[in-house]
Amino acid sequence: MKEKFKVTPWEVSGKIDYDKLIKEFGVSKIDESLLKRIEKHTGELHFALRRKLFFAHRDLNWLLDEYEKGNKFFLYTGCGPSGPLHLGHLGTWIFTKWLQDKFGVELWFQFTDDEKFLFKDKSYEEIQKWTSENMLDVIALGFDPKKTHFLIDTKHASLLYPEAIKVAKRLTFSTVKAAFGFNDSRNVGEIFYTSMQAVPAFLPSVIEKKKIPCLIPLGIDQDTHFRVSRDIIPKLGYYKPAIIHGVFLPPLTGIESKMSSSNSDMAILTTDSPKEVEKKIKKYAFSGGRDTIEEHRKKGGNSDIDVSFQYLRMFFEPNDEKLAQIENDYKSGNLLTSELKEILIKKINEFLAEHQKKREKAKKEIDKFIFKTK
Amino acid sequence: MKEKFKVTPWEVSGKIDYDKLIKEFGVSKIDESLLKRIEKHTGELHFALRRKLFFAHRDLNWLLDEYEKGNKFFLYTGCGPSGPLHLGHLGTWIFTKWLQDKFGVELWFQFTDDEKFLFKDKSYEEIQKWTSENMLDVIALGFDPKKTHFLIDTKHASLLYPEAIKVAKRLTFSTVKAAFGFNDSRNVGEIFYTSMQAVPAFLPSVIEKKKIPCLIPLGIDQDTHFRVSRDIIPKLGYYKPAIIHGVFLPPLTGIESKMSSSNSDMAILTTDSPKEVEKKIKKYAFSGGRDTIEEHRKKGGNSDIDVSFQYLRMFFEPNDEKLAQIENDYKSGNLLTSELKEILIKKINEFLAEHQKKREKAKKEIDKFIFKTK
Repeated sequence: MKEKFKVTPWEVSGKIDYDKLIKEFGVSKIDESLLKRIEKHTGELHFALRRKLFFAHRDLNWLLDEYEKGNKFFLYTGCGPSGPLHLGHLGTWIFTKWLQDKFGVELWFQFTDDEKFLFKDKSYEEIQKWTSENMLDVIALGFDPKKTHFLIDTKHASLLYPEAIKVAKRLTFSTVKAAFGFNDSRNVGEIFYTSMQAVPAFLPSVIEKKKIPCLIPLGIDQDTHFRVSRDIIPKLGYYKPAIIHGVFLPPLTGIESKMSSSNSDMAILTTDSPKEVEKKIKKYAFSGGRDTIEEHRKKGGNSDIDVSFQYLRMFFEPNDEKLAQIENDYKSGNLLTSELKEILIKKINEFLAEHQKKREKAKKEIDKFIFKTK
Repeated sequence: MKEKFKVTPWEVSGKIDYDKLIKEFGVSKIDESLLKRIEKHTGELHFALRRKLFFAHRDLNWLLDEYEKGNKFFLYTGCGPSGPLHLGHLGTWIFTKWLQDKFGVELWFQFTDDEKFLFKDKSYEEIQKWTSENMLDVIALGFDPKKTHFLIDTKHASLLYPEAIKVAKRLTFSTVKAAFGFNDSRNVGEIFYTSMQAVPAFLPSVIEKKKIPCLIPLGIDQDTHFRVSRDIIPKLGYYKPAIIHGVFLPPLTGIESKMSSSNSDMAILTTDSPKEVEKKIKKYAFSGGRDTIEEHRKKGGNSDIDVSFQYLRMFFEPNDEKLAQIENDYKSGNLLTSELKEILIKKINEFLAEHQKKREKAKKEIDKFIFKTK
């Protein structure tokens, strides 16, 4: 029996077959030669690349061609503010910051408050509150304020909407319908919205009045937006944006689907206390261990389905040797699930202690990040 | 055989049966008692009301109830900038100015540059050029700059878009499809657009943080936008806007359809020279006269289908007695078509000489009219 999975910008469910997604979406796998090419510029490879957490791309070779010719790109990523952020959100942005640091490039960061208001059963005011909250988490990750520009769709609409209608004019409902699986009962804001998400991919070119290459790091669920707009952007006179696609951090309950803050018990939030982290991991983190300690010692655990191990692999243990050691110990039965969980809890709480300190400091820094129109 | 006609915001064709439109659109006829009620406040009736050029309404009695309770309304009308303006455009705005003067109220004037860009095969730059040009004509009509606020959809998007998405969230494609006759090949900007046109009907209430009644004077072809949004606006916490509907000034070629600047020979443009006006009226203005002078003297002309007479009735001869005299003379055969045309040409050129002088002066006044966000 085939397992069914679904990946759209607004729903991710089931056990995701990333190889199948590569084919379906028509993106390219990041192969060893491309990794080598990146390493040539960055000096080392981020573990998210080594471990193929960023596993696919569109036009990354072209982007590096341009870069090697001296044509610097900018980065564009974003956040849909509809609730508290969790570790799954941070992964893409931490990797984005690494790209910013290694390539020394500008980053445009879009907060799609319009999207979340239009797609979620939440009030405008609530979405605005989460926009402010989520900005703190992004700032806390340490982006360079001189090179990082926040765009908030509603606040920057005078900048974004005039460009969005240029995208919209070339995009029919038929296309949007097919790409996103919409029907006629969708609201007209949802139907228009992808035009707004397209804009930051060429806005710096509009502002600078010259064509600048763009690289978009994103979770692969967001690819559909750009599959639609990448065909349109060159017709407006700008480069097709390059994309680098990431996998999803799974929820606590198991390695299917993706972490979501709709149920805060299933996600580690950036604002969780050490106690909450401990409780969540101990109570909910799906274990690849055996039913009894005896059996575990004898047969060992299954790290592939163990959420705690996967969080170490995907987020908290950048050192490959240490990770291999933990995996071997777990598989051989030397390391019990409870011990594995303790390792993870300690790592998460160290990370969050630091993050929450920076998040507090970020309250005074928001203004430095919000893009100022002249 | 039934005559077919079509009235949508983007197409008006055929011989319009206004009584049928009243039924189809579900609006109310302006009756004598309502005219008396208006006259009580204005002291006199504008000829556009006396002659039923503004002939229908929605909730005008409610608006006057509120006004009589001391709850002042504001006016909202607009312009779709896609080409030079013609007399047909000015009619609604001259009447709007009369309302502003008589009731002493604020006017919000929307320039829907996004709409025209999305619906017309014209470049963004061309639409921007026409926006600037059209603003001059509006200013030339003498609106009070202290009480008149221009909103340009793209420039004021930071003000309009956040409110438009609140409308959009409650508006499905099914509804828009049915109301405007769209199909799936429409672009997503066209589908979203009516949300932007809804906003000025409640924006002053948003800004002032209190519910303010709104009266929209418009050509009846624009009614569809508000038929859709009037149901939504109260759900956002504001009053349903009242509307007063005008007939269309016919093109030079005959009393069907409406004047349009797509073919500049069929319209009197605000920038036409006296020579152009003379040529257009003489060459194109459809005549209700007879084939020969002899026949005309004997049987008289038909003022109902005579475009020159209709322009006098609808625009250039506010004096009822003088108009009746001209009509009688024409019907009796005393007045020839060529003589009627001379009367009109003189009137138009007097009006345009003054208008063009004010239009030139308006170039220095644009800034006073464009709404400043705090």
